[in-house]
Amino acid sequence: LGSNSVEMDSQTEWTDVQKKIIPWKNSTPSLDLEMVFQDRAAKLGKSNSRLIVVASLIDKPTNLGGLCRTSEIFGASALVVGSLHYIQDKQFQHLSVSAEQWLPLVEVKPSQLVDYLQQKKTEGYTIIGVEQTAKSFDLTEYCFPEKSLLLLGNEHEGIPANLIHHLDVCVEIPQQGIIRSLNVHVSGALLIWEYTRQQVIKQKQQK
Amino acid sequence: LGSNSVEMDSQTEWTDVQKKIIPWKNSTPSLDLEMVFQDRAAKLGKSNSRLIVVASLIDKPTNLGGLCRTSEIFGASALVVGSLHYIQDKQFQHLSVSAEQWLPLVEVKPSQLVDYLQQKKTEGYTIIGVEQTAKSFDLTEYCFPEKSLLLLGNEHEGIPANLIHHLDVCVEIPQQGIIRSLNVHVSGALLIWEYTRQQVIKQKQQK
Repeated sequence: LGSNSVEMDSQTEWTDVQKKIIPWKNSTPSLDLEMVFQDRAAKLGKSNSRLIVVASLIDKPTNLGGLCRTSEIFGASALVVGSLHYIQDKQFQHLSVSAEQWLPLVEVKPSQLVDYLQQKKTEGYTIIGVEQTAKSFDLTEYCFPEKSLLLLGNEHEGIPANLIHHLDVCVEIPQQGIIRSLNVHVSGALLIWEYTRQQVIKQKQQK
Repeated sequence: LGSNSVEMDSQTEWTDVQKKIIPWKNSTPSLDLEMVFQDRAAKLGKSNSRLIVVASLIDKPTNLGGLCRTSEIFGASALVVGSLHYIQDKQFQHLSVSAEQWLPLVEVKPSQLVDYLQQKKTEGYTIIGVEQTAKSFDLTEYCFPEKSLLLLGNEHEGIPANLIHHLDVCVEIPQQGIIRSLNVHVSGALLIWEYTRQQVIKQKQQK
């Protein structure tokens, strides 16, 4: 560890990753996303969260529009979508109530997700899949790290197996009904809320 | 207190209320709601919550259908709607994914809400308005009683002033974004989740 050869390998890997993933398209292409984020936080007069919501696997414009509204309200740093074309969709706009004007949106296609998740890991994010698996944490018991990335599953397929391997952890929402599962916007909203609730409590304890 | 005259007054009041509010229509009219509830809980092999979600002020079938799905999944004891006709609505059905077959739905028109809330108070429910007011509790700080009734506001008007007076408490969701407020289905879902989370933690502590 820390030897030259390892460092060179890491460097090589990193460069390869960079080549594959840059540039991510985002909704304000002329600006660096981190700057947009800090600028927005400053305008709001408050510190924003280090929460990234990844919705690239979601197909329905209504779910994406709803997630855009909810993510903006809770001060997520970005919403990642499979295509920025969704912003032009009437159903998206109806549900987002113009939140896309305030929340940075980033385009990462499903085929780019593995690389994107890897990059975010190197930036210190914990990659959290919202999915029911044998090893999932119960949402009532999971403590979110400050730098959290939520990966939401597709409406029908959930998170595909090849992506599950790239997650740091899966979290599931305990459900008691007969209907099989929550709507993906609602699932996302509950995790965004739970992250926010925990951060609020931590900030109060620090005062 | 406890004198005959007071008791008679209470009795008179109670009878008046009963006359005005019975029968509430519900989606399984031949059965007593409490029996339906216990039967369903038994079939599910688990104890259900004592949470009533009142959505009588909500207009949009999509929001009602979504709330139906979410309420069923978290084992609410009933969803109260302004009209049972919503169940026939295609948009409702699209969002509810048939949850109305498992969750008792009760019809209470907006004009009947004051009486309904009064009755539920006499049954031991705490009446909780989901609304931003000067006296609202922050959702991160509010402890839900076991018998909780959530009153959700209208999409545009929120909870009207005449109903605010009949609430035991208001609870608001702390929001940091520029967009003014969450969608009412999402607001409801977050309170239903928070109630559920607290109940789960209490049950674990009792073991």
